[in-house]
Amino acid sequence: MIEKIYAELDSSYEEMVDIRRHLHMHPEPSFNETKTAYYIRHFYEQLGVEVKHGVGGNGVIATIRGSKPGKTVALRADFDALSIQDQKEVAYKSTVPGVMHACGHDGHTATLLVLGKVLHTFRNELSGTYVLIHQHAEELAPGGAKAMIEAGALEGVDVIFGTHLWSTTPFGRIDYRVGPIMAAADSFEIKIQGRGGHGANPHETKDAVVIGSQLVTNLQQLVSRRVDPLESAVLSVTSFVAENPYNIIADQALLGGTVRTFTEANRVLMEKEMARVIEGTSIATDSLYEYNFMRGYPAVVNHENETLYLKEIAASVPGVEEVFQCAPQMGGEDFAYYLEHVPGTFFFTGAMPDGDVYPHHHPKFDFKEEAMLVAAKTLATAALNMNE
Amino acid sequence: MIEKIYAELDSSYEEMVDIRRHLHMHPEPSFNETKTAYYIRHFYEQLGVEVKHGVGGNGVIATIRGSKPGKTVALRADFDALSIQDQKEVAYKSTVPGVMHACGHDGHTATLLVLGKVLHTFRNELSGTYVLIHQHAEELAPGGAKAMIEAGALEGVDVIFGTHLWSTTPFGRIDYRVGPIMAAADSFEIKIQGRGGHGANPHETKDAVVIGSQLVTNLQQLVSRRVDPLESAVLSVTSFVAENPYNIIADQALLGGTVRTFTEANRVLMEKEMARVIEGTSIATDSLYEYNFMRGYPAVVNHENETLYLKEIAASVPGVEEVFQCAPQMGGEDFAYYLEHVPGTFFFTGAMPDGDVYPHHHPKFDFKEEAMLVAAKTLATAALNMNE
Amino acid sequence: MIEKIYAELDSSYEEMVDIRRHLHMHPEPSFNETKTAYYIRHFYEQLGVEVKHGVGGNGVIATIRGSKPGKTVALRADFDALSIQDQKEVAYKSTVPGVMHACGHDGHTATLLVLGKVLHTFRNELSGTYVLIHQHAEELAPGGAKAMIEAGALEGVDVIFGTHLWSTTPFGRIDYRVGPIMAAADSFEIKIQGRGGHGANPHETKDAVVIGSQLVTNLQQLVSRRVDPLESAVLSVTSFVAENPYNIIADQALLGGTVRTFTEANRVLMEKEMARVIEGTSIATDSLYEYNFMRGYPAVVNHENETLYLKEIAASVPGVEEVFQCAPQMGGEDFAYYLEHVPGTFFFTGAMPDGDVYPHHHPKFDFKEEAMLVAAKTLATAALNMNE
Amino acid sequence: MIEKIYAELDSSYEEMVDIRRHLHMHPEPSFNETKTAYYIRHFYEQLGVEVKHGVGGNGVIATIRGSKPGKTVALRADFDALSIQDQKEVAYKSTVPGVMHACGHDGHTATLLVLGKVLHTFRNELSGTYVLIHQHAEELAPGGAKAMIEAGALEGVDVIFGTHLWSTTPFGRIDYRVGPIMAAADSFEIKIQGRGGHGANPHETKDAVVIGSQLVTNLQQLVSRRVDPLESAVLSVTSFVAENPYNIIADQALLGGTVRTFTEANRVLMEKEMARVIEGTSIATDSLYEYNFMRGYPAVVNHENETLYLKEIAASVPGVEEVFQCAPQMGGEDFAYYLEHVPGTFFFTGAMPDGDVYPHHHPKFDFKEEAMLVAAKTLATAALNMNE
Repeated sequence: MIEKIYAELDSSYEEMVDIRRHLHMHPEPSFNETKTAYYIRHFYEQLGVEVKHGVGGNGVIATIRGSKPGKTVALRADFDALSIQDQKEVAYKSTVPGVMHACGHDGHTATLLVLGKVLHTFRNELSGTYVLIHQHAEELAPGGAKAMIEAGALEGVDVIFGTHLWSTTPFGRIDYRVGPIMAAADSFEIKIQGRGGHGANPHETKDAVVIGSQLVTNLQQLVSRRVDPLESAVLSVTSFVAENPYNIIADQALLGGTVRTFTEANRVLMEKEMARVIEGTSIATDSLYEYNFMRGYPAVVNHENETLYLKEIAASVPGVEEVFQCAPQMGGEDFAYYLEHVPGTFFFTGAMPDGDVYPHHHPKFDFKEEAMLVAAKTLATAALNMNE
Repeated sequence: MIEKIYAELDSSYEEMVDIRRHLHMHPEPSFNETKTAYYIRHFYEQLGVEVKHGVGGNGVIATIRGSKPGKTVALRADFDALSIQDQKEVAYKSTVPGVMHACGHDGHTATLLVLGKVLHTFRNELSGTYVLIHQHAEELAPGGAKAMIEAGALEGVDVIFGTHLWSTTPFGRIDYRVGPIMAAADSFEIKIQGRGGHGANPHETKDAVVIGSQLVTNLQQLVSRRVDPLESAVLSVTSFVAENPYNIIADQALLGGTVRTFTEANRVLMEKEMARVIEGTSIATDSLYEYNFMRGYPAVVNHENETLYLKEIAASVPGVEEVFQCAPQMGGEDFAYYLEHVPGTFFFTGAMPDGDVYPHHHPKFDFKEEAMLVAAKTLATAALNMNE
Repeated sequence: MIEKIYAELDSSYEEMVDIRRHLHMHPEPSFNETKTAYYIRHFYEQLGVEVKHGVGGNGVIATIRGSKPGKTVALRADFDALSIQDQKEVAYKSTVPGVMHACGHDGHTATLLVLGKVLHTFRNELSGTYVLIHQHAEELAPGGAKAMIEAGALEGVDVIFGTHLWSTTPFGRIDYRVGPIMAAADSFEIKIQGRGGHGANPHETKDAVVIGSQLVTNLQQLVSRRVDPLESAVLSVTSFVAENPYNIIADQALLGGTVRTFTEANRVLMEKEMARVIEGTSIATDSLYEYNFMRGYPAVVNHENETLYLKEIAASVPGVEEVFQCAPQMGGEDFAYYLEHVPGTFFFTGAMPDGDVYPHHHPKFDFKEEAMLVAAKTLATAALNMNE
Repeated sequence: MIEKIYAELDSSYEEMVDIRRHLHMHPEPSFNETKTAYYIRHFYEQLGVEVKHGVGGNGVIATIRGSKPGKTVALRADFDALSIQDQKEVAYKSTVPGVMHACGHDGHTATLLVLGKVLHTFRNELSGTYVLIHQHAEELAPGGAKAMIEAGALEGVDVIFGTHLWSTTPFGRIDYRVGPIMAAADSFEIKIQGRGGHGANPHETKDAVVIGSQLVTNLQQLVSRRVDPLESAVLSVTSFVAENPYNIIADQALLGGTVRTFTEANRVLMEKEMARVIEGTSIATDSLYEYNFMRGYPAVVNHENETLYLKEIAASVPGVEEVFQCAPQMGGEDFAYYLEHVPGTFFFTGAMPDGDVYPHHHPKFDFKEEAMLVAAKTLATAALNMNE
């Protein structure tokens, strides 16, 4: 069976590329992907595939039911673009000023659409059900996943798989990891309210620059002293703004930054310990503050069985030359939410181009299109093998 | 003799007020005081007083020679205004948008002009020589004093006196102080050059926010540990700017601020010790920096004999109700330069208005005009008494 | 074959316990284990096993040669005790005041001796060669492993296995880990030389308490900013001594502590970055310092193939109920040196007692003796299976 | 009159030296000066001078009543020695091992005794009353002054004078100062209670070394930011003790040090702001603390009129070559308490020896004995002139 799927995917490769390039030329930013959503829905409708749209926003879900009973397997692809000006010189360059598919979601979508078409073609020979989740708004918190799940996207789903084409991973390699593979990416804002005054009279002020500096220095101790050294956490104060004339002591300082963790326990720890350090510094300096800790996506925590399963079946997929246990990444992904509800795994599909390599979110970002075929075959194998 | 001077000043009080109000209505900012300079020069020329103009810029110097030999005494008044919008509601409000005599230099000028006229009147009965220094550009570094001295303003001068009408000192009070009465007011800029990067990957960066915070914290030790606790020094980092998105670690931080000292030794100490702390912090954090320490005016250091002399004679001046040893002020004054060349003293003449009191440089600043008469009489007494 | 070995081990269990208890009653501290070494040598000599003593100190090596060619497999057991007073109430309590087998090395030795006897018994049916390394002085740097290797302990050895009975790991569990399983444990000393003086005159001093505090604070940034957050490192300043009368500013501060890492790169990074921070702090504060970074044992880094091999064969060993991928431990082990020369793996054998559980190095430490049998069988399987 | 006193003092100089040397050979430490007290009492009793002993401890007070009415003037000399081993090589070296007059109180006593004898001689020609306060225990808090005052030492006293022979001030100079001349000298102890643990597991601890270092660093901001830069304050953490093995994180750190101020307001400010910083640091680090701020003597604050009076009359005293306005000293003196009750002034009498000069409290300390005569004449003039 899987061999027939592989063959059909191979012969549909040009269509996959066409779709991807069409989407690449017409990118839409997160939460504004109405044309893309219509494109996806229309694609399935023309084939006669069962499709729901407007799921939790712009989300689209196609369902392919095999003729025999079996597990319900979800596959997910995101389809939003970024507010970045495309600087590539290619025929399929973005036609929308200031908007660009700089993360490969166009490729994800083309991969899943064509895989859906192929599964639909062979539906009578398949066991189980295949739920194709086309998700909007992965790039912008609160993301589309949460709303789609709340709208029922995972109802009846037994297991879910997702992949990210990755421009800095060699073509032919699949990267897996049991447990956390992408970090929780939270952010924070701290406003220190001191009392301003003349630079010559510090005793009449509460110097917000000194207070802020003390705070930044003391916050370093959270990672060095409070987090288990065998676990990973990052606290970066990326912004410190207190702009004043040379002779006016700062009344206010605005600090901002990010926290990355891989477990809920560490995430809670960091938020709580930050509060403690800020409160203590405020008391020590007799100043006031506002502190907002804004949760982004949680960590993507891959389930062990599904990940080891993926690792094993991936080795058999044509085009896959290496299956590699990668280190976790500090970036965030709202695929995390699916894994909080159903078992599954998220993996990277190597898509390093032959020429210059640019990281994701770079204005010259591109990926090797053949990687879409590898991704489609790996997803297909993972999905169908569940019902063998 | 002095009694005749007092009487003549008393009967010239209305003229003094007229001149002051005229100047108040036509303020000119530092280094642009051409009309004011012409006004002063013209005033003396009409009286037949020997006058030089264009001294070190817009400076004007009138000389009144007594008929008998004696010491040469200089009196100084500054005449520049500030780039502040006058917000007072008075008939003599500034007519120049955005420019205002918000520091009382109009009063200083009126005082000295009328005193000059009176001295000229009695010149045949006087011993010694009286050099009336009308100085431009006190408010803006590098100031007018230095250039006027280089142009010869102090040639042959034996002693110099200067005063500042002071809106927050009670009317009727003269404030003196031996030694430092106003601070050296220096400023600095520090650019920390780290290396930016993603907030999740601190080890690939040199975090300029952390480096800057460490620097601000460590700089506190200069005042607490390096300066003699019996002496005064202030180091205020008033500005800290490193503005970045929440997930981008700062590559650069810009710090600025001010240093106030009362002795050359402490001034040099602060500049040098700052350099040491910045250099050490840079080495500790493997980062680069630029450091500029910009000298403002030096401290105004009153000479002991001339100050105690002033203290004593002031007590005898009509209208002076109290002679008060004041604390030094942390603000700067380029009268400092005169005192580096000749003996003398700088004092404050109480000029607190009867109604609302606003500090110097406030858009509603004003002073009690009768204080000009007190200032004129005190300067006259100090000057003439030198030749008794 | 292996079944016969298991059976023979089972029937030798009582002997194993007897040996262990004898050793437990007669512990000798690191580098002073002469009687224990003689006991081991004598045990083998009586059996007619080829044995070398005085290897790199008190080390003893027995060699068992199978009748058929094959790989040379080394098994290692350490035999030194600790300077701790035994506080257990058991019949086999230490008879030596202040010395105790509080880490289970008595068990390691009994395990390997009996396993050696069994292998000797079946030597004619075995392929390959079995090198039984009885190592002295594991507990005290520089340890016995290095010297034994220099004395030729690994000559001709193809692969090495070692285990540690572990009192806090459940009985029946084998803990393995590819890569670092135990940390590099280094230590450091920093002497800050400031300049003392009267507490009232800080400007005449270089305050070693302030300098040391600044240093400790700034060192926190190494873990928070310089180490890859996906890797583990610890820097603990455990000691800060600057004792002075209340009115005498410290001329000197002595700091000490430990650094733990799992890779040579991070070990070098920490030593070098510490040097950088110390140097910068010294320059910033115009003080002097001495800095010693003293390397302890390197990290125990298990080889991938041998570890996965061990993981697989362990699952088949009678008595092993779970094979578990453990987190690395921050403690040190000089087994690290063997793995720098030959492939191999170090694993933990669960030995949690049924009653009260005390951690290693505790005066009431004990372990479940049946775990010796599990360890012996696992080592035997790992060794013999190499020559299947 | 004063001329006769001068002459009598001159002819009593040898007696003064004898007394001083006797006391120098028989020093007694603070609160144990029973023989010295008896010596003083006996001296007066033999002369028939009215004398009280046991005043507030070992204190002795002699009273000399003139024949005419007038003001009651108190003169004070302290008589305790220090627990220091005399290392001088002179005939009058201390005969008591480990105890020494290393601060000149022997000279103070000899000066006042002989002056008392002379005043007694001329009592019939004098106006007013002279209270000679021989005070014990100046060197050791809580000092003798407070208890003597509580016992009535200042009853009826109108004004008080005291002097300190000073070995680093040139002979022939009298140092005066209006306002604070010696600082309040307070001390503090801070115990930081964290939670200890293994050096490899910081997250399980509250690291007292890091907390203490953060505290020391943050305390620097009190002097740099909270104290008026025109006023003086010192905060020195002189002691930091947290001694631990290299692999055990500190559970406790003991900090100690001193605070010096010249006004009650700054003294209260420092104690309160320290409490604030300690409390905030404790909250930020989730640790506990004990904080004791122990008040020593308050600042010696000279009264203006009495000090300017002393300045003026001192200039007329034979042997006084210079009357000098000195800077305040950071050391403490319990003469402070007298000035809280009655007007008066405390001054330094230059007593620099001709050869090597050692500071007070040095084991080779000595002073120029002729300075006693200068001190006696200055005190006599100050006292008698009050009743002219």
